Amino acid sequence: MFDLLLSNALLKGRRVDVAIQGSTFAAVEPAGTLAQAEARERLDCSRFLLRAPFYNTHTHQAMTLLRGIDDDCALMDWLTREIWPREARLTPHAVYAGTRLAILEGLKSGCVAFNDMYFHQPAVIRAAEEMGVRARIGLMYMDQVSDHIENDTTLALRDALPPTIGLSIAPHALYTTSPELLRRVADQAESLGLPLHIHAAETAAETAIAKERFGFDSPIAYLDACGILRPGTILAHCCHATEADLALIAARGCFVAHCPQSNQKLASGVFPWAKAAAAGVRITVGTDGAASNNGLSMIAEAKAAALSAKLGAGAPDALRFADLDRAVTEEAAAALGFPNAGRIAPGADADFILIDLETPAFAGGGDPDANFIYAADSSCVDTVACAGRLLMRAHQVPGEADILAAARTASATLLAP
Amino acid sequence: MFDLLLSNALLKGRRVDVAIQGSTFAAVEPAGTLAQAEARERLDCSRFLLRAPFYNTHTHQAMTLLRGIDDDCALMDWLTREIWPREARLTPHAVYAGTRLAILEGLKSGCVAFNDMYFHQPAVIRAAEEMGVRARIGLMYMDQVSDHIENDTTLALRDALPPTIGLSIAPHALYTTSPELLRRVADQAESLGLPLHIHAAETAAETAIAKERFGFDSPIAYLDACGILRPGTILAHCCHATEADLALIAARGCFVAHCPQSNQKLASGVFPWAKAAAAGVRITVGTDGAASNNGLSMIAEAKAAALSAKLGAGAPDALRFADLDRAVTEEAAAALGFPNAGRIAPGADADFILIDLETPAFAGGGDPDANFIYAADSSCVDTVACAGRLLMRAHQVPGEADILAAARTASATLLAP
Repeated sequence: MFDLLLSNALLKGRRVDVAIQGSTFAAVEPAGTLAQAEARERLDCSRFLLRAPFYNTHTHQAMTLLRGIDDDCALMDWLTREIWPREARLTPHAVYAGTRLAILEGLKSGCVAFNDMYFHQPAVIRAAEEMGVRARIGLMYMDQVSDHIENDTTLALRDALPPTIGLSIAPHALYTTSPELLRRVADQAESLGLPLHIHAAETAAETAIAKERFGFDSPIAYLDACGILRPGTILAHCCHATEADLALIAARGCFVAHCPQSNQKLASGVFPWAKAAAAGVRITVGTDGAASNNGLSMIAEAKAAALSAKLGAGAPDALRFADLDRAVTEEAAAALGFPNAGRIAPGADADFILIDLETPAFAGGGDPDANFIYAADSSCVDTVACAGRLLMRAHQVPGEADILAAARTASATLLAP
Repeated sequence: MFDLLLSNALLKGRRVDVAIQGSTFAAVEPAGTLAQAEARERLDCSRFLLRAPFYNTHTHQAMTLLRGIDDDCALMDWLTREIWPREARLTPHAVYAGTRLAILEGLKSGCVAFNDMYFHQPAVIRAAEEMGVRARIGLMYMDQVSDHIENDTTLALRDALPPTIGLSIAPHALYTTSPELLRRVADQAESLGLPLHIHAAETAAETAIAKERFGFDSPIAYLDACGILRPGTILAHCCHATEADLALIAARGCFVAHCPQSNQKLASGVFPWAKAAAAGVRITVGTDGAASNNGLSMIAEAKAAALSAKLGAGAPDALRFADLDRAVTEEAAAALGFPNAGRIAPGADADFILIDLETPAFAGGGDPDANFIYAADSSCVDTVACAGRLLMRAHQVPGEADILAAARTASATLLAP
């Protein structure tokens, strides 16, 4: 007896039946093959495209509460004038409410996992666990935070976390974290066996700081000297990574979390996708926080990544759809510590989305998988499942109205004069 | 007795009641003021943001049938190898089916008007008229089309068109249209009192052609010498317009239809929004055809325009939201020949959209109008009206399933080997 049976779904151009047992895909067979199989629950998928979901590799989820704060402002001004003073008011309850809103927005657009760097991490963990999504939660380190007791509290939860939630060591960036602190947390990551997550080479200003303050040619070279470039480290942004930097990132086995819309909105720069891919860098995509994007749809972010790569390289074939698709699914799942997720195959983790093909984006020409990213939006995402659990059905996530109401209250408090 | 009353809608931060009489807004008053007014139909708008809709200023609507054809290919190769051979097979019926699909996709994302350049224009006119949207239909001229009988047929319909549909003279581009043909159609536009619509300065290759074939510094200077830059001419793309070109475009009273996603996808270039605005150019936004975008959501296009302007200028304040918002509504409506549309005000044409605020993009911080473009997508567009007629209610357009089915059949025929 299977737990769930998906019948007659469109998977990469073929019609299939898919059986799920517990948190795993048990079988993927030609449509009709599993018609007689017993299952606790069956979904007729005749009108659906079946896909692996998105895995968002760079977020500050609770920043949904600060969405749209001074939309026309540069990164450093924006952080110091608009964001940090408000973040000082954050409570665990507000972070919980803002994170739930972000997870809801992610589910609506087909995303089941996020890589977070933010305050009050136990509240983020609780939100992710309750809503059933995967997450990697960063223990954030910054000089301006005088002690890091909260990180110790989060670390103490480590052994009790479900297999869908992991931790990382997340120093904020070279401009907010002293060399001593960077070296210390790199050692800590090694001794604890945890991956690292950091903002890196986001702006030209960061390159200037690496040169003037630390005497290095680039932020990447400096972070490597501090021990931050370890296997599995997620480097967010990397707009200003040089060819030497890209070779180093690849050699160290790090991932890049490319955030094209945030980089464009803050006029930070353009991540050189084609050069990075040629250098062997493992590339993934993230939305960044809602305050600098301002949406959290990974459909939109994946399209922006493709367009940015093509324009940036001056060549429409600089990034092929199949490579983009892999970057936002299987490669991103691996980056977040879920190497068995991000694909629809027997034995893989049962994460999937169902896309309604009876919508305009799928009625003309084109490959349905490419149309989903290049022409559709969240309005066609019908169903989302993570680790075998159905988290959204017929566009609805349980408790939506409560999530919106709680976020509204928390945001109003945070934005009050 | 009003025809329609919208009660308690959120309009630019205020709650209002709005009365519609025929095709016009009759009154816009503080909420509650019109509670006792008589109306044939009332809509409770308590959960809705009320906005002017989008006006899409550069389209090839029926290219929905060719969506996703060779996604990773440069403009000239793509046109000659993939697009033109298939377009040679187009029938009026296929164009009708493809245009209806595009109009549906536009309505779903809050757009009520398009500026088309394509074949079999009577079929495009019929689709627009039946579905109730505004359109300006271009009589297309290219050297490779040996006669232009179809354009004469379209022109003969002119006096019978409803006020929501107009015509333009639409030579394709300098690389497909001889100088003699350009001069002839410019004269024709003047004698008929019709505006012009043309692709201009889209790629670097076009600049090379202007220099090598015609001896001009730029495509814009050449098109001006041919008489194309007239008051109201819509120049699509203008990625490679120089500062001198922008000054000329502004002086001649032309509009630019900026198509950021198509320009990125084909790696054509970046329209210099900030410089154009400083030069006084009237800027609008278009999706281009679905074959090179590949979506037709003006929400996504407007966001891409903002991000492209900020990154392109290297300054996050290079384009303020209010200016973007005006470009995609009121300015675009004026460009399409509807100077009384694109705003919610007494006496203006009654075009509007209702956006569902009970969705994630509107539950955190931020101005709702900015959140609509920067953080939302078509899933929050509930209602669309054009010239006082409700074209979409509760996300549904009448006849959707038939439109999808007909487009599927037409596309399959076109794409058959």
